[in-house]
Amino acid sequence: MISSPYLLHLGAAVDPLAVKTARGVAQWRPRSCLGQRRLPGCQVSLGLEDVTIAEAVRRGARTMIIGEANAGGVLSPAIIPEILAALDAGLDVASGLHQRMADVPALRAAALRAGRTLFDVRHPPQDLGVGNGVPRAGRRLLTVGADCSMGKMYTALALEQALRARGVPADFRATGQTGILIAGDGVAVDAVVADFISGAAERVSPARHDGGWDLIEGQGSLFHPSYAGVSLGLLHGSQPDALVLCHEPGRPHMRGVPGYPVPGLAETLARNLEAARRTNPDVVAVGVAFNTSGLSRAEAARLCAEASAELNLPCQDPVIDGVDLIVENLLSCFEASPSCASAGR
Amino acid sequence: MISSPYLLHLGAAVDPLAVKTARGVAQWRPRSCLGQRRLPGCQVSLGLEDVTIAEAVRRGARTMIIGEANAGGVLSPAIIPEILAALDAGLDVASGLHQRMADVPALRAAALRAGRTLFDVRHPPQDLGVGNGVPRAGRRLLTVGADCSMGKMYTALALEQALRARGVPADFRATGQTGILIAGDGVAVDAVVADFISGAAERVSPARHDGGWDLIEGQGSLFHPSYAGVSLGLLHGSQPDALVLCHEPGRPHMRGVPGYPVPGLAETLARNLEAARRTNPDVVAVGVAFNTSGLSRAEAARLCAEASAELNLPCQDPVIDGVDLIVENLLSCFEASPSCASAGR
Repeated sequence: MISSPYLLHLGAAVDPLAVKTARGVAQWRPRSCLGQRRLPGCQVSLGLEDVTIAEAVRRGARTMIIGEANAGGVLSPAIIPEILAALDAGLDVASGLHQRMADVPALRAAALRAGRTLFDVRHPPQDLGVGNGVPRAGRRLLTVGADCSMGKMYTALALEQALRARGVPADFRATGQTGILIAGDGVAVDAVVADFISGAAERVSPARHDGGWDLIEGQGSLFHPSYAGVSLGLLHGSQPDALVLCHEPGRPHMRGVPGYPVPGLAETLARNLEAARRTNPDVVAVGVAFNTSGLSRAEAARLCAEASAELNLPCQDPVIDGVDLIVENLLSCFEASPSCASAGR
Repeated sequence: MISSPYLLHLGAAVDPLAVKTARGVAQWRPRSCLGQRRLPGCQVSLGLEDVTIAEAVRRGARTMIIGEANAGGVLSPAIIPEILAALDAGLDVASGLHQRMADVPALRAAALRAGRTLFDVRHPPQDLGVGNGVPRAGRRLLTVGADCSMGKMYTALALEQALRARGVPADFRATGQTGILIAGDGVAVDAVVADFISGAAERVSPARHDGGWDLIEGQGSLFHPSYAGVSLGLLHGSQPDALVLCHEPGRPHMRGVPGYPVPGLAETLARNLEAARRTNPDVVAVGVAFNTSGLSRAEAARLCAEASAELNLPCQDPVIDGVDLIVENLLSCFEASPSCASAGR
């Protein structure tokens, strides 16, 4: 568990995409973000106050998050002294980079000396077990999609926010590195040993007894020739009661594999429901979340209406429309209303 | 690539099950096995000549295989001096145990000193990439099943043997540790990082251009709540042209998960074909392999006939009947015969 409040370290980033992870944390956990730290040459900002490490500590920061990513996923030379300074000042440090901080001897030694923790969130815990498939208490919703990068994390976070706004206990459950930095907890399921995928999903969303919802961040796609195993293990281990289908209309082919068309909505939903029933026979679909950023408003509305009619489910763009219709359908489905039994099954 | 001939080391095993791996090697690669070595107290035998390490080297052995497994998958204290002696005598050493030989400093140092290789076959190579899904040359058959331990490795090996007996180039492709020790090569796909499952399958069965067949060892089941991700990634990465369905009639529930019934033959085949079409739209089923060891001959024959009629495919127990009918159907299917197009699709 990564402790907040956070200091977001943007390094010397010049490209807004390089601080995508930090932006996600600032967007979804604004009250946990005390400020940003930028090195000379940095040309991006998250709109937070610029603070030094010492000032962040004085204001109560507990963890510095490495917010600048680069192509190789390695620690830049300039960030090493910053991490050392943060540790010495009493902060934990969290990173979603591929290269582990804990593999840099100077950083490991400094953390040990200072009694602080290095969170390399892309690297899963070593004590995972295989999934046991035993039904567990609580309600879980998983976001699924026909392809990678369809908005599955965003949608799960939006659902958490909307449920909490209605007073329903709800927790985003992270399965990728950006999500883990936002949630402060989770497991990068694509990085675990293959035998432990569903076990990792069981770990991410343990039994809950408060009547609330776990909103589990989906990964990849059952149809992706590179990553489908991750998606199926996550689906089984999540034992979802509800699915939300995430989609980006108009994508020309599966991400990274030009020969592979993106499957249609109905097929995607049917295959996900079919596989999900293996560990939760009562699973239902409750909504469709479209990413329509590449479309005109009129075209987006037309496609949403079409999808809604085809699947008999509410369809919204979480960024533009929010997720109220989906949340209302979710809540009505699980308030013993019979209206859900036929939808999306 | 593990070099033969082999010396099979049975340690001080008292239980035939503990030398299952070594027995598999002796059964399927008898000409590669020069002899067995047993320590005082050993109460099992593979029927091979007992030889010392020095004698094995004199006869041309290249690799010593650690053939005794224990519950924890660790190296027994008694085996360490034996491995050291083998390395010093000029042998490579291969092990399917969970504990790595390479993690024991004395063994690593001895291997380095002797210029020999330690093959920890349960631990996959570190340079795997994600699957690319690009169609590749050659013909591939994958064994699939409704559950774990349904005879998928045995069936693939029997198919290799039967094809070779007909003069058809054929190679067993191993995806588990026993299979790797038999084949001398392969990747333990359940041990790779989850993102690389289908990439590992692509590595295991590379493009081939000789008109022959790769017989790929299946793993787990699309229906197993613990391991389905491994099975789906393996199915996608294998890009199989043909499937053989392996089954053990009468199993009360999925292995290790009492609440989960074993799905039926038709459903198992349909779901595997559906998923396999994602990377090879022309995939067909060519046969059913039953493990009938728990049944009377009459009952086995009755169930085989039923399955054959239900699926319109030949059904045999590879241990009792061999796999000739399945091989004949495979070859006729891929000799431009139209008879296969409808079977099992």
